[in-house]
Amino acid sequence: MASEEGAAVDARQQQQSVEWFKYSKRVVLRSIVCREDKGLGLAGERAVVGGWVRSRKEKAGKGVARGPRQGAAPAPAQDVTCGEVAVFRVPILRSIARILMIKDEPVVQRPVAAPAKREPVVAYLRINDGSCIADLQIVVHSSMSLPGQDISIGTSVLVEGVLEKIPSPGRHVVQLKVEKILHVGIVDLKKYPLAETKFSFEFLRAYPHLRPRTSIVASVTRIRNILSYATHKFFQNNGFLFVHMPIITTTDSRVCSKMFHVTTLFSKSDDMEKLMTTDDHERVDLEVVKAAIKDKSKRIEELKRSDSNREALLDAQRDLQKANELALQLDKRQKSTSLKIKEVNFSNDFFSRPAYLSFSTGLHLESYACALSSVYTFGPIFQADDSQSPRNLAEMWMVEVELAFAELEDAINCVEDYLKFLCRSILESCSTDIKFMSKYMNKDCIGCLKSIGSSSFARITYAEALEILKEVKDHTFETKVEQDLSEEHESYLADKIYKRPVIIYEHPKEVKPFYMHVRDDGKTVSSFDIIAPKAGVLVRGSQREERIDMITKRIQELGLPQEQYDWYLDLRRHGTVKHSGFSLVFEKMVMFATGLDDIRDTIAFPRTHGSANT
Amino acid sequence: MASEEGAAVDARQQQQSVEWFKYSKRVVLRSIVCREDKGLGLAGERAVVGGWVRSRKEKAGKGVARGPRQGAAPAPAQDVTCGEVAVFRVPILRSIARILMIKDEPVVQRPVAAPAKREPVVAYLRINDGSCIADLQIVVHSSMSLPGQDISIGTSVLVEGVLEKIPSPGRHVVQLKVEKILHVGIVDLKKYPLAETKFSFEFLRAYPHLRPRTSIVASVTRIRNILSYATHKFFQNNGFLFVHMPIITTTDSRVCSKMFHVTTLFSKSDDMEKLMTTDDHERVDLEVVKAAIKDKSKRIEELKRSDSNREALLDAQRDLQKANELALQLDKRQKSTSLKIKEVNFSNDFFSRPAYLSFSTGLHLESYACALSSVYTFGPIFQADDSQSPRNLAEMWMVEVELAFAELEDAINCVEDYLKFLCRSILESCSTDIKFMSKYMNKDCIGCLKSIGSSSFARITYAEALEILKEVKDHTFETKVEQDLSEEHESYLADKIYKRPVIIYEHPKEVKPFYMHVRDDGKTVSSFDIIAPKAGVLVRGSQREERIDMITKRIQELGLPQEQYDWYLDLRRHGTVKHSGFSLVFEKMVMFATGLDDIRDTIAFPRTHGSANT
Repeated sequence: MASEEGAAVDARQQQQSVEWFKYSKRVVLRSIVCREDKGLGLAGERAVVGGWVRSRKEKAGKGVARGPRQGAAPAPAQDVTCGEVAVFRVPILRSIARILMIKDEPVVQRPVAAPAKREPVVAYLRINDGSCIADLQIVVHSSMSLPGQDISIGTSVLVEGVLEKIPSPGRHVVQLKVEKILHVGIVDLKKYPLAETKFSFEFLRAYPHLRPRTSIVASVTRIRNILSYATHKFFQNNGFLFVHMPIITTTDSRVCSKMFHVTTLFSKSDDMEKLMTTDDHERVDLEVVKAAIKDKSKRIEELKRSDSNREALLDAQRDLQKANELALQLDKRQKSTSLKIKEVNFSNDFFSRPAYLSFSTGLHLESYACALSSVYTFGPIFQADDSQSPRNLAEMWMVEVELAFAELEDAINCVEDYLKFLCRSILESCSTDIKFMSKYMNKDCIGCLKSIGSSSFARITYAEALEILKEVKDHTFETKVEQDLSEEHESYLADKIYKRPVIIYEHPKEVKPFYMHVRDDGKTVSSFDIIAPKAGVLVRGSQREERIDMITKRIQELGLPQEQYDWYLDLRRHGTVKHSGFSLVFEKMVMFATGLDDIRDTIAFPRTHGSANT
Repeated sequence: MASEEGAAVDARQQQQSVEWFKYSKRVVLRSIVCREDKGLGLAGERAVVGGWVRSRKEKAGKGVARGPRQGAAPAPAQDVTCGEVAVFRVPILRSIARILMIKDEPVVQRPVAAPAKREPVVAYLRINDGSCIADLQIVVHSSMSLPGQDISIGTSVLVEGVLEKIPSPGRHVVQLKVEKILHVGIVDLKKYPLAETKFSFEFLRAYPHLRPRTSIVASVTRIRNILSYATHKFFQNNGFLFVHMPIITTTDSRVCSKMFHVTTLFSKSDDMEKLMTTDDHERVDLEVVKAAIKDKSKRIEELKRSDSNREALLDAQRDLQKANELALQLDKRQKSTSLKIKEVNFSNDFFSRPAYLSFSTGLHLESYACALSSVYTFGPIFQADDSQSPRNLAEMWMVEVELAFAELEDAINCVEDYLKFLCRSILESCSTDIKFMSKYMNKDCIGCLKSIGSSSFARITYAEALEILKEVKDHTFETKVEQDLSEEHESYLADKIYKRPVIIYEHPKEVKPFYMHVRDDGKTVSSFDIIAPKAGVLVRGSQREERIDMITKRIQELGLPQEQYDWYLDLRRHGTVKHSGFSLVFEKMVMFATGLDDIRDTIAFPRTHGSANT
């Protein structure tokens, strides 16, 4: 973002007239209030602006006493035509006017009923269009009064007017004096949940489709946007190729045991038929039993008539009773509505085999690195994780990078440069948003971003990490530090000891997946994790095992289904190279950059266990 | 890409020494052979290069007669140390050497067995590292001879040497004279499918993990990369915010009837328990029947013993037989392995309700446009389409854009500029790849890209399109042109009549979804499609219906489940604005740009009905 943004800003500086947005007949607020001069240089310019009302206040009009707002009458301001007044006082005409005016046609002139004498009132509305954190104040004279509820918080307005200096400038120096109201989108106050101004994150999560209208969620969205674009800029500028990796996979990457199935078995009616066979069974059973019942009843009649064979009759009646019970049971089950699984018959499924949502596309990405050398991807990953951890989602986005002819250190250097670039990009391209976040979330998040942008990360081996943590005396861990590092331990290193991202490398092979390069000691692998303050594990990476014999051995050791990895092993059979890579969970980077505590606030529509309502 | 790339190229021009790639101890081939001077300015420079062998030929060494290659002996060239010779002649030592040399440590000196006299042979290998379409020729003297199979097509090599002018330059002007072989990754010739040089696309599809090693798939990948980055550049430069939209959705967008279910019902063992209840039923049945059988058998014994009640005996035996049949049936079914569905009990599923893979995130994106004004997303979409159409995949990527305060024309102008930008980006940033594609796929694809980059698109209404097609005399359509346009008709307009993208707008509301703005005539909607030659429908867009009453009416007309859209209708209830947007299926853009005939060749790992093997 940085460079273009910088350029754009400079352009705005030179420009002394408003920039109309190319794809909408309005001026984006950012291009007014985010100028170095906060828009002062545009005073006197005519503009159309749109946005949603963030706040409103009212004053009696110039040189007149404060009067009641409701039904305030139009003492037409000199620069408002009678037509407009009429149009905007009578709601039914507003829509007509909207159409006419947006098409820049003359306004229908209509006679106005002579208004009752009242003092004019001026409404000051702060509107925001999401292009930046700052609002623009618009000044609406009561002569173009809208029904009261029209201008509550959340109302959308599109207005035309003239930019003017604010007589007593504060944070804002220009405002727009409204001359035409082109559109108003009211708020149904009885139903609008965001009519207040202060909300908890938890409250907002119930309205994922409305929460971007709040300053904080809007800021997070803009920061996330910068992080995303900076990701592409970094890798493109370094000659990496972006490749889209598959989301649906049939390679059950055992890295994550909790994968989602992708299926059409529930929806394909023809399959339903195939799958109903057992109901036919049941129908058969039921027929058999019903037939039996019929026979038995008939037989019982005979026996009764013949009036002999008391025992036979009793037998028959006992049997009839049992048959009836059974019939009842079978019948009941045919009405039951629960899914009955013994073993799923995937041959009827869309891919004729079990298919999953990918938890990592690293293996697939390697195949592109083993042909195009330097590649990256940025796609969604999925885990059916039912823990309500504030660090996990069922659906997250991941940046994955793979480098051919590269060893562990190359990958570590790459990811460190990448993370520094991300931090610098935020500071350059959305400083106001990050200031806002630091004010509400994490005081020292700016300092943190700056230090990472400049200083280098701590680098320690897994063994060293254990030693350091064993030395910790002033803190008791939930799980004692012995042979393995837990998430708790890793976080402590970043949060308390180093207070910056920590790179832990060379893990015991037991705690890492099969595809990592086994080091000469035969015990450890060429792996690394980056632990960030607050966010926890931000990056996982490694040098991959390029030796066919070694990787096959590992697959066997771990008892993985070798046939599933056969395509992957081709990369070692045919022209293998040393290669390394890493993956970054994007939402964790957003947490780290914004200081947010809950990962559900880093993404537009969070998906968690039992919760997906849109 | 354009600008950075341009800059990068300029930088390379000035630079007179090789650029080492920052994240791998080698020089990327692109930075040598893609210079304006094709690398001539680098002659004499030392470099390490890596890649996969594309072709090999051999000649007898300078001033000596051609001799047999196999087992060619080392008449050590002056710039090859004895150590290396030894190392590279004895395979078992190669790995040692690899480790040592990459660590830049001195090579183990080993005594070499005095070789039998033979003429030296020089191997000329063309290698490619995927950074560009051009290969680099490396010259390997037989004194560092590798076993024959080592240097077959597909072998990976990492070598150090000196760049030198090619005595008789052709397409290439520099080559690398190898002095050290740092790594060789052999090919298992018995198993390597790409040992030949010519393949059909269909053949390659069986090897999605290896096909990027072919020139054509590599070119498609680089073009796709440019299209993807250009997408971000265009929208970022125009002030749009990138937002990640959800992939898992519970809003069944009826736009596409063929959605995938996302479920954990197949994998969650505890649920399996819940779902096994019916087996208990069966067990009960079986018990009942078995008990009955026991009774009956006992009874039959009695009857036999008492030797009376012939009829009763016959009855009992008949019953016994039936009971046995039933027992057999129930028992058989308990061993059956097919999925038995009447109605799925989603309350046990991960989201406690049916969840799908999204086919379009447009509705969700609108909620961000109705807060942040100008937004776009770029994510995967899914359809369980079992037609084997060369234009459809189960998994595709889609660019979706939403503009607040914008009408139909704004969206059309935006998408037209966007598509022009894409075309120009390809021509600027991967001209060699596109030349290559035009040579093998579509002769006039360059002309097509140029014309689109400059000229404007054809714009006709749906009604006009029908009229034009009715006039067509020299072509008979599969389905006669009457009231509706079929895909066949639309393609004809772009392919045959206009020979460039055609924008068809204002469709009858019946053929479009509920959320499109109904025009004043009450019959048509403010919609548009862009039809591109070859690719078919490239873009679909519309002005959205902002009026709550109108959109509710449409939902009712179409009998959609209103409660599912309640969150979406909030956008109209609260601060509604005119807004417009569009979506582009990215793979179709790649088809259009590359001239590929089959969409399965535009994406790394295509997913289609019955086919997902990685």
